[in-house]
Order: sequence, then C-alpha cells, then structure tokens
Amino acid sequence: MDVFEALLTRRSIRKFEDKPVSDEDLKDILEASMMAPSAGNAQPWQFVVVTDKDKLEGCAKINTYAQMAPKAPVSVLVCGDLSLEKYAGYWVQDCSAAIQNMLLAARGKGLGSVWTGIYPLEDRVEGFTKLFHLPEKVIPLGLIVMGYPAQSPSSKSRFKEERIHHNAW
Amino acid sequence: MDVFEALLTRRSIRKFEDKPVSDEDLKDILEASMMAPSAGNAQPWQFVVVTDKDKLEGCAKINTYAQMAPKAPVSVLVCGDLSLEKYAGYWVQDCSAAIQNMLLAARGKGLGSVWTGIYPLEDRVEGFTKLFHLPEKVIPLGLIVMGYPAQSPSSKSRFKEERIHHNAW
Repeated sequence: MDVFEALLTRRSIRKFEDKPVSDEDLKDILEASMMAPSAGNAQPWQFVVVTDKDKLEGCAKINTYAQMAPKAPVSVLVCGDLSLEKYAGYWVQDCSAAIQNMLLAARGKGLGSVWTGIYPLEDRVEGFTKLFHLPEKVIPLGLIVMGYPAQSPSSKSRFKEERIHHNAW
Repeated sequence: MDVFEALLTRRSIRKFEDKPVSDEDLKDILEASMMAPSAGNAQPWQFVVVTDKDKLEGCAKINTYAQMAPKAPVSVLVCGDLSLEKYAGYWVQDCSAAIQNMLLAARGKGLGSVWTGIYPLEDRVEGFTKLFHLPEKVIPLGLIVMGYPAQSPSSKSRFKEERIHHNAW
C-alpha cells in the first residue's frame, strides 16, 4: 500500500472479524513501530502483546473505551521505559511516534486498529500496571487493539487551512 | 512509496540540498499530519510553517539541536492548542502522532526531515513562544526541519525481540 494511502485512509477501527493476526504480520508491525524516532535515539519503549482473553477483559474493565479489546484477536500495550530515556521527559512523544507507526503498519497489512489512551490518567495507569505486573519504571501509555476490520468508516479529509500559520502566529 | 518502505527507511536527516519544497508537497504533508488520530478526535494541533531565515536563525539560537534549521528550506513548528482538547492531558500524544505522520509523508515525497524537541523543556517552550508570538493556550511541541536530503544514513533495523513481552511482564 502506498504510504499516502495508509496515512489518509487509516481510521480508528472498533469492530473486528473473528480471524487471527499472524505472528509474522505482528512481528512486522512491531518492527515498524520500533523504527520510530526518539530523543537521542533512546528507543525507550516496551511492548506487551496481549491475546489472553482474561487479560483483555481486564483491560476493558479498567478503561471503558477499550470495551472492544476482548472481541479483537490481539492488543498491544505500549509502555515507556524511563530507565531507557537519554533526555528525560520525551518518552511520551517517542512512544506516541512508535504507536503511530504501529497503526500505519497495521493499515498497510490490511488490519484495523484503535489507540485507546491510558497515560496520564492515574486510575488507568495504576490499573494497567497491576494487571500486567509492570515494573516501577515502566509506564503504560496506550493499548492498541488490532484485528481484521469489520467496519469501513469515513475517509473524509481532516485538512484545515486555518490551522496553518506562516512564519508567525 | 510503499508504506513499509517509508516506515523502515525514514531516518533523521540533518543535511539538506539547496532546493525548495513545493507548496503542493507541503500541503500534502500537512494534510497527512492532520489525519492523525487524537483523543476524542479533537485534532488539537496548530502548525507554523517557517521559511523566514531570521526566524530559523532564531530557532537555532533557542535550541542548539536545531542548528540545521536555517540551512533547510522549510521548518514546521507543531503546537498543541489546549483550547481544542476534549480530554485534557492527551495533546502531547495527539500532536506526536501528527508529527510522525508528517515525517513519513515527507519521506514519501522524497524529502528528509528531523524532529527537534521543544516541550517539555521550559526554556525552549518560552523561547519558541516568544519568537512566534504564540497565544497563551498554544504550546510549541517540536520543530520539524525539512528539505531534500543531502545525506543517506543507515537503514539498519531497530527491532529488539527483548522489548516484546507476552500477556504479562
């Protein structure tokens, strides 16, 4: 798939077919995610691949916006690892770039995905930390739910000329 | 360009040819950026396209890691607009996804780019806010320097198996 097609047609997908994602596709998607830029090239990310239905039910209980997780074949919990940072304070940006790569790679594989937010909401951070036994310096940022799409949402442009300024505000 | 080629071969480019970026390409890149997901689809971003050499010299003075900005044809200051947020606290993630889309779209156009960090460093936030007369609720997140690449950095994989966990830590 052309990179602009992926960029322009990726949408949040919340309904999935009952069909697994292959290990090979998932590996390619995680590799694409890890190719994201990061401050000082620190790559301060960790991934928990979740296929266990009890764990996915647990995710849905912590975050009501992740209700679709148990109905999808796989989710990926993306975490920042503060012990890997070179320049403190940039891990959210680094891991968000990695997530965006993941969503686009999934689109390129014909998969749908949705980014459900965790950090900075304290109750969600605490819930996911406990559910997945995360160590102290590993902070859950987002849960990416993934699978073959069972819906085709709108592809209309979000371009807004008024958001573009030239040389100053 | 295939989306996986863009994902796997995008690298930070810090040396540029003396050749302008067309308005059409820049518009396509900004549109791709605005297609990023955001919490509640709030799209809480603003862009300042910078071609003025005095402003670009000013950027380099504020952030020593943006020294290449005055030597590139164009930079884009990506800002979060807190007045547009639906769910407070997610603007950094939203705008980081928009930036990552921008870098990949630039790659798809044969352009190189580098994401130079601003937020959360207070002196940089203050410097860019003053230089570009940003209003109170608009926070500069990163300056993306862009142009035709005059270097070809390594394309080796950053895949790390040990960063992947299964169902729990």
